[in-house]
Amino acid sequence: MPVGTVGTVKGLYLNQVKATGTDIILGNTYHLMLRPGAEQVAKLGGLHKFIGWNGPILTDSGGFQIMSLAKIRKITEQAAVFQSHIDGSRHELTPERAMDIQRLLGSDIQMQLDQCLEYPHTEKAAEEAMQLSLRWAERCRRGFGRQPGRGNFGIVQGGINERLRRESAEGLTSIGFEGYAIGGLAVGEGQDLMLRTIEITEPHLPIDQPRYLMGVGTPEDILESVARGIDMFDCVLPTRSGRHGQAFTRFGKINLRNAKHADDPRPLDAKSPCPAHSEYSRAYLHHLIRSGELLGMMLLSWANIAYYQSLMQGIRAAIAEGSFEDFRAATKEQWKRK
Amino acid sequence: MPVGTVGTVKGLYLNQVKATGTDIILGNTYHLMLRPGAEQVAKLGGLHKFIGWNGPILTDSGGFQIMSLAKIRKITEQAAVFQSHIDGSRHELTPERAMDIQRLLGSDIQMQLDQCLEYPHTEKAAEEAMQLSLRWAERCRRGFGRQPGRGNFGIVQGGINERLRRESAEGLTSIGFEGYAIGGLAVGEGQDLMLRTIEITEPHLPIDQPRYLMGVGTPEDILESVARGIDMFDCVLPTRSGRHGQAFTRFGKINLRNAKHADDPRPLDAKSPCPAHSEYSRAYLHHLIRSGELLGMMLLSWANIAYYQSLMQGIRAAIAEGSFEDFRAATKEQWKRK
Repeated sequence: MPVGTVGTVKGLYLNQVKATGTDIILGNTYHLMLRPGAEQVAKLGGLHKFIGWNGPILTDSGGFQIMSLAKIRKITEQAAVFQSHIDGSRHELTPERAMDIQRLLGSDIQMQLDQCLEYPHTEKAAEEAMQLSLRWAERCRRGFGRQPGRGNFGIVQGGINERLRRESAEGLTSIGFEGYAIGGLAVGEGQDLMLRTIEITEPHLPIDQPRYLMGVGTPEDILESVARGIDMFDCVLPTRSGRHGQAFTRFGKINLRNAKHADDPRPLDAKSPCPAHSEYSRAYLHHLIRSGELLGMMLLSWANIAYYQSLMQGIRAAIAEGSFEDFRAATKEQWKRK
Repeated sequence: MPVGTVGTVKGLYLNQVKATGTDIILGNTYHLMLRPGAEQVAKLGGLHKFIGWNGPILTDSGGFQIMSLAKIRKITEQAAVFQSHIDGSRHELTPERAMDIQRLLGSDIQMQLDQCLEYPHTEKAAEEAMQLSLRWAERCRRGFGRQPGRGNFGIVQGGINERLRRESAEGLTSIGFEGYAIGGLAVGEGQDLMLRTIEITEPHLPIDQPRYLMGVGTPEDILESVARGIDMFDCVLPTRSGRHGQAFTRFGKINLRNAKHADDPRPLDAKSPCPAHSEYSRAYLHHLIRSGELLGMMLLSWANIAYYQSLMQGIRAAIAEGSFEDFRAATKEQWKRK
């Protein structure tokens, strides 16, 4: 899922996003509640109409952004209380309000509110945050109520501890959700620990419902996580990296700021169906990025979303054909070729 | 002519630029000589190929940017010597080199190097800069040589003084160029003085060759200048204003930062053929601009280029029908309607 934090996938027109094969995009409760406000979006016809996207939208609940963005925050049994990173205004987000906001936005998949922890943290902190998230999960599920055609996902917490992850997963499945996310990863623990945590969590999730790894990751993270049973991802990496001059391609990651691209007339990938890959020379992209031009950010964000979607399409096709292991090996081999 | 300073019309894909009805875009010798360099562009196949534009390109000679952007500058009979605004490196631009650069870029209309003055200035300074620009015009014309299918324009200088403007225009026409520009305006003298200077200059320019008013301007500046005999314009205003949240429309200028747009579901102009005008609500544009999002800058830059081109198309059609005066009055009347 390309990330459309404040109601725009940064640097792309939504018809470009669609044309890369994107089915679903993500929006952020935290950002949208602060600006323009959930009631405001509802008054304007809901998030789909407001931004002009007629596919599904998943909204994150705000838990992660309160941890990573809010200036001051206090977590109580009742709610997360925090100061806006935009204007310092004070906000209280209860599990019930997080669900109200997502209903007002009209999102198709609504995440429970959870408590995210920075890494590293103590096991005691992980246990407390997991238990609180589980109690909030019950309140969110009640708050979600009946919304035909829409889904509500629980979020497994518990740090890197096997017992905590299992208890969280079991607690959530006994409440019952339309899908399950693994939260609290990709916060600095490194790929090895992240993958190990997926391995210890995944067996405790229903086999017939979507598993969503939140905030991940690099193309390699994605391949390895799919190998461990993950179905869904969201990440700002393709667009954020694009704005900073990095392109993801079939031939691995290419840093367009690098001087060696200055006189390279080749496109990023002549065989890609995405014009950002096939119709612009590396020399021109290098020039645009070095000059700080909007078009450089636009083209590389587009190229990266297109690459991520083609990677996911390749993964889905390989799984359907029973050849995922071959696909994983061949894809990683090709990344080395530049 | 939309301005593509460093080889990109800021915030737009060139196929969007084309689709607004744009025939010709502008590039800047000053910027392109500094980065990526004229020889570098030539090695990559010329500016058209480098940026992916197959219509005509006019390049400014650098005179204006040396006045407005370079850190330190010294003008001698021989050359303009200046420090790059990017890295402080020292450069010498002779009239001959200005033409070499434009030939290397492969531009279709190449401007002479001139000396621009800030406003206000003394009449003596205006006379000296005009005379130097005239001597440089001769050297540029020789440097341009024979380039079939391409044109070379002289630039009239002389401040706001009638005698100087006449002498400059007569001097240039006796050298003989494919077109004539009026330079040294829109530098702070105000619309009244600018229009008066056009009025005193225009009678001394050939009636059957293009007249180009450099760096102008607002839609009203354009209407009034066409009324005084100008054919061609370039200006950064549509894209620069777009990046700062201002939209030019049939209903005048609209500042999307203004809070009154926050809950306005109307598009900028439902009847415009440009999607940026017709498919996005003012409320969404307001949200994007207030959030500092790239898409806000992209949409308003696009909307503004589209409006400028539709204004020029309207002007051309009205002139062809002999109804320019009616068009001018009706257009100005409509700007008041918001």
